[in-house]
Amino acid sequence: MSEAAQTLEGWYALHDFRLIDWTLWKAADDATRREAREELASFLAEYQQVEDNKKGSTATYSIVGQKADFVFMHLRESLEELNALENAFNKSIFASFTVPVYSYVSIVELSSYMSKPGEDPMQNPEIVARLYPTLPKAKHICFYPMNKRREGNDNWYMLDMESRKGMMRSHGMIGRSYAGKVKQIITGSVGLDDWEWGVTLFADDALQFKKLVYEMRFDEVSARYGEFGDFYVGNRLDQALFNDLLRI
Amino acid sequence: MSEAAQTLEGWYALHDFRLIDWTLWKAADDATRREAREELASFLAEYQQVEDNKKGSTATYSIVGQKADFVFMHLRESLEELNALENAFNKSIFASFTVPVYSYVSIVELSSYMSKPGEDPMQNPEIVARLYPTLPKAKHICFYPMNKRREGNDNWYMLDMESRKGMMRSHGMIGRSYAGKVKQIITGSVGLDDWEWGVTLFADDALQFKKLVYEMRFDEVSARYGEFGDFYVGNRLDQALFNDLLRI
Amino acid sequence: MSEAAQTLEGWYALHDFRLIDWTLWKAADDATRREAREELASFLAEYQQVEDNKKGSTATYSIVGQKADFVFMHLRESLEELNALENAFNKSIFASFTVPVYSYVSIVELSSYMSKPGEDPMQNPEIVARLYPTLPKAKHICFYPMNKRREGNDNWYMLDMESRKGMMRSHGMIGRSYAGKVKQIITGSVGLDDWEWGVTLFADDALQFKKLVYEMRFDEVSARYGEFGDFYVGNRLDQALFNDLLRI
Amino acid sequence: MSEAAQTLEGWYALHDFRLIDWTLWKAADDATRREAREELASFLAEYQQVEDNKKGSTATYSIVGQKADFVFMHLRESLEELNALENAFNKSIFASFTVPVYSYVSIVELSSYMSKPGEDPMQNPEIVARLYPTLPKAKHICFYPMNKRREGNDNWYMLDMESRKGMMRSHGMIGRSYAGKVKQIITGSVGLDDWEWGVTLFADDALQFKKLVYEMRFDEVSARYGEFGDFYVGNRLDQALFNDLLRI
Amino acid sequence: MSEAAQTLEGWYALHDFRLIDWTLWKAADDATRREAREELASFLAEYQQVEDNKKGSTATYSIVGQKADFVFMHLRESLEELNALENAFNKSIFASFTVPVYSYVSIVELSSYMSKPGEDPMQNPEIVARLYPTLPKAKHICFYPMNKRREGNDNWYMLDMESRKGMMRSHGMIGRSYAGKVKQIITGSVGLDDWEWGVTLFADDALQFKKLVYEMRFDEVSARYGEFGDFYVGNRLDQALFNDLLRI
Repeated sequence: MSEAAQTLEGWYALHDFRLIDWTLWKAADDATRREAREELASFLAEYQQVEDNKKGSTATYSIVGQKADFVFMHLRESLEELNALENAFNKSIFASFTVPVYSYVSIVELSSYMSKPGEDPMQNPEIVARLYPTLPKAKHICFYPMNKRREGNDNWYMLDMESRKGMMRSHGMIGRSYAGKVKQIITGSVGLDDWEWGVTLFADDALQFKKLVYEMRFDEVSARYGEFGDFYVGNRLDQALFNDLLRI
Repeated sequence: MSEAAQTLEGWYALHDFRLIDWTLWKAADDATRREAREELASFLAEYQQVEDNKKGSTATYSIVGQKADFVFMHLRESLEELNALENAFNKSIFASFTVPVYSYVSIVELSSYMSKPGEDPMQNPEIVARLYPTLPKAKHICFYPMNKRREGNDNWYMLDMESRKGMMRSHGMIGRSYAGKVKQIITGSVGLDDWEWGVTLFADDALQFKKLVYEMRFDEVSARYGEFGDFYVGNRLDQALFNDLLRI
Repeated sequence: MSEAAQTLEGWYALHDFRLIDWTLWKAADDATRREAREELASFLAEYQQVEDNKKGSTATYSIVGQKADFVFMHLRESLEELNALENAFNKSIFASFTVPVYSYVSIVELSSYMSKPGEDPMQNPEIVARLYPTLPKAKHICFYPMNKRREGNDNWYMLDMESRKGMMRSHGMIGRSYAGKVKQIITGSVGLDDWEWGVTLFADDALQFKKLVYEMRFDEVSARYGEFGDFYVGNRLDQALFNDLLRI
Repeated sequence: MSEAAQTLEGWYALHDFRLIDWTLWKAADDATRREAREELASFLAEYQQVEDNKKGSTATYSIVGQKADFVFMHLRESLEELNALENAFNKSIFASFTVPVYSYVSIVELSSYMSKPGEDPMQNPEIVARLYPTLPKAKHICFYPMNKRREGNDNWYMLDMESRKGMMRSHGMIGRSYAGKVKQIITGSVGLDDWEWGVTLFADDALQFKKLVYEMRFDEVSARYGEFGDFYVGNRLDQALFNDLLRI
Repeated sequence: MSEAAQTLEGWYALHDFRLIDWTLWKAADDATRREAREELASFLAEYQQVEDNKKGSTATYSIVGQKADFVFMHLRESLEELNALENAFNKSIFASFTVPVYSYVSIVELSSYMSKPGEDPMQNPEIVARLYPTLPKAKHICFYPMNKRREGNDNWYMLDMESRKGMMRSHGMIGRSYAGKVKQIITGSVGLDDWEWGVTLFADDALQFKKLVYEMRFDEVSARYGEFGDFYVGNRLDQALFNDLLRI
């Protein structure tokens, strides 16, 4: 039996991807559309309030291509809060004009591969800030889920701790070389959703997503052990841009 | 030919996952919604009655994310009873506001890997209680189906009994280290549904699902031989909380 | 080139799985529902007539869980008859209240792995009866499609005839040990449908499906060479039970 | 780099599989149904005209089971003609009562594995007839797409030409032993659709599809290198039979 | 850790595949259809304007078979512009008669495998023209996404740079032998969409797609390392042909 890595967890996460039913939206009368937009505005204000109170954080982005029209990425203190959030949204008029297409349940995670021995990590403000982050207001988002492979000779979970640590360190160094260009939030989803991790990247230049993920792919930990789900990429939607999106 | 493990079986299980069609529910008139809610309440009361009579057990949970809005996990004495349950539900008004999204048919199972030789297990009240359990009222549920792998050199069913027993013992020890934190119900589904087992976990702290499943993933029986389906995670819905969920 | 096993074929088979659209069924008026039920009754009587005339056989079962509400398993002399059956059903009023969810086209098959040399099998009444069977009226049905694997070192079709024969014999012995408990009908579907075989099991005790399939899984022919599709399990629907199912 | 086999190409092919929306068809009034049937008849007459003029060929078959109700297999001189055909059909009244479920784009192909050196194949009338065939009027059709495998040690495209030629020759000999029983049309789809080839078989006895495909599966080229998609099997629909199918 | 290839990127790309809902389109009144066609014409004119201004390029093709009726391939300077394009289209009347079926997000890419050392590629007008291309007006299009394989001994990302360079050179030579027959545009999608690259081919003779892709399949880089998604093939739609397509 191989030794499990220790992990630290922070806020729970719900990524909620939705399409807009444009035919329905166009067919609605002005009063209904106005009401729906006001509801949406009050949800966005409420999410901002939670973020201001350091009780969670919400990022809102459009998605390019047909996979989705927008995503809410919610961080909150419990599964109950995430569930309450989605139920409140589902009961709104605006939600009737959307079609849920994909969601992901996970929890902000830091792995101990890079931790310092003898330190209580929860006394380290930098670590606490990474577990309970305020999501960046970057221009672009990229989300994908991933697994570590368990196939034949490429079985991550059969490696000893030292090998895994060495590979993760080299992997982390690529990530660090993108500091200032790409902000990465890792959420663990073993036991919570269909993949083992969700990766959410934020950048002002979307090309950096490609550069970073491509460079990492040549790293042994991705090349031999990475399995990747679908990729979603999009542009920031603040209140004004969301209004533009919905203008007929 | 490798020797099959002996198993003990108890109640049959049906996990019934459903979405709520919120647009339809919101469009319904108050009288219809009231009638639907009363029907639902009487189903829940009936399920409770069966549980009180030790003739089965039903757990009701919400599901976080878009995969489902709620799940009924029913344990009953026969496939006929499970079928009658779902048909009765399908004929209700409330069911018209739901969309079936996933179900799983299995039977509560104990494997003999840890049994004592010479003992008649059905004389052991603890074993009988585990075969015919009253489902816990924990705050959270986690469900996933799984197979033992049969691929190349990683073929569980080609291993001899001793190797399997040794690995299952180590696996069971991880499970036991979560005693008091996570309650696990294994249901067998070979010949009944698409995977070989269903795993249903109950915990008051959802983070323990992640801790347990992640720790087990480094154990050889999971690392080399485990194949996992989709994961569903949720929060307990008693009568009052189900009413809140449906309030418009 | 490995030598192909000789096979004997009997009646063609169509498994026709359907859901009931309960919302539509409940919304229908009594006269329409009565007409639909009368149509269904006359189909069932017609199927019985064919069976009485030894021109085929039809089994009707409910399916537990959300995959389907019922299945017709039809055996007939030709693909034209099976096609005529499904077209006649599709044109009925009752069919408008159902949703087709899965079907399987195959032909009753006996393989020569266990045949006696020098014998003309079609002179053997037992073999003829197995090729043109009257389907049992058992309480439960189990259906699943399967392939023999062709992967790396686990390639059934590259084995020589003797190896295959030896493994099939051991496999058959497990099957025979369930005589009186499980009745098994193998239908071949190479060139007819997406898998190589369909397996249909009948038993009065559904637990025997699990016992049999699980025991076989440790047999080399399943452990190394078996690939399995989705499993469907259900309860017998005679005319009276089908009427109960449709009662609102 | 392994040497690519030379291929000869003839007409482009479009297999167009469709379900009939029986509920809609039954709900239509007689005048609409009559008009739809007349349109269909005029399409069939037009296809016949093209065939008579040796400018292409069209086969029309029902499909057994729920995958489709019928298929048009069109051979024409260009992708533009195939596209025009499907667009004309899509604009018809009859098409509104059908649901497209699967299609396949390919081109009639002969490989050079069996060609004679020094011969100009296009001067060989037999070869020209096979590239621009009039589709048979056999009682049954069978269609499936396939790939040659590229996995680990079973990589067709890494074999040298001689090995591939030897295996294809043995494969072709099985095919030839079914001469008079099964007519086979191979269409290449590399660069045109999702698999590398489409195989369309025609026979008066559908059992010969099973016999042929099963025998070939033990041949090394299929056993080690064949990957197969879904299988569609059906019965011939001439004008009269298509009318019967549509009669309510 | 293997060394990542350097890449150059140009315009972002959105492939937007759609079906036409023919039943809806036929049911629309003439005024609505005229308005929809005028909207479409003005979109096409706008796309042409952008192309004339060298700010991007758009290709419009029909797709043969049921996968789609047409595709827009848009090249633009940013993800924001691509998103704006699809939102504007989605809000149009014409869009209400279409069903989105597949899309792909990527960015025009040149890899450095063939670059000359010491040269600043952005000073090379040929390279700049390839990064910011005006899409050809060829008669046919072919699109497919692809990955480089990472499986067992066939792991592209574990190869050293020299091996990859050698294989890519041989691969490129096949491509060059089709110069004048097939124009190839590679777009990278690592971190942007579900596959690593999109390949878009243009040719006046569609058979050249098959010849090129088939010949490449025997090349080691495809034979051992290529994984291919779905293939889409179609015919050029200029304004007049698009009008023909929509004529009822």
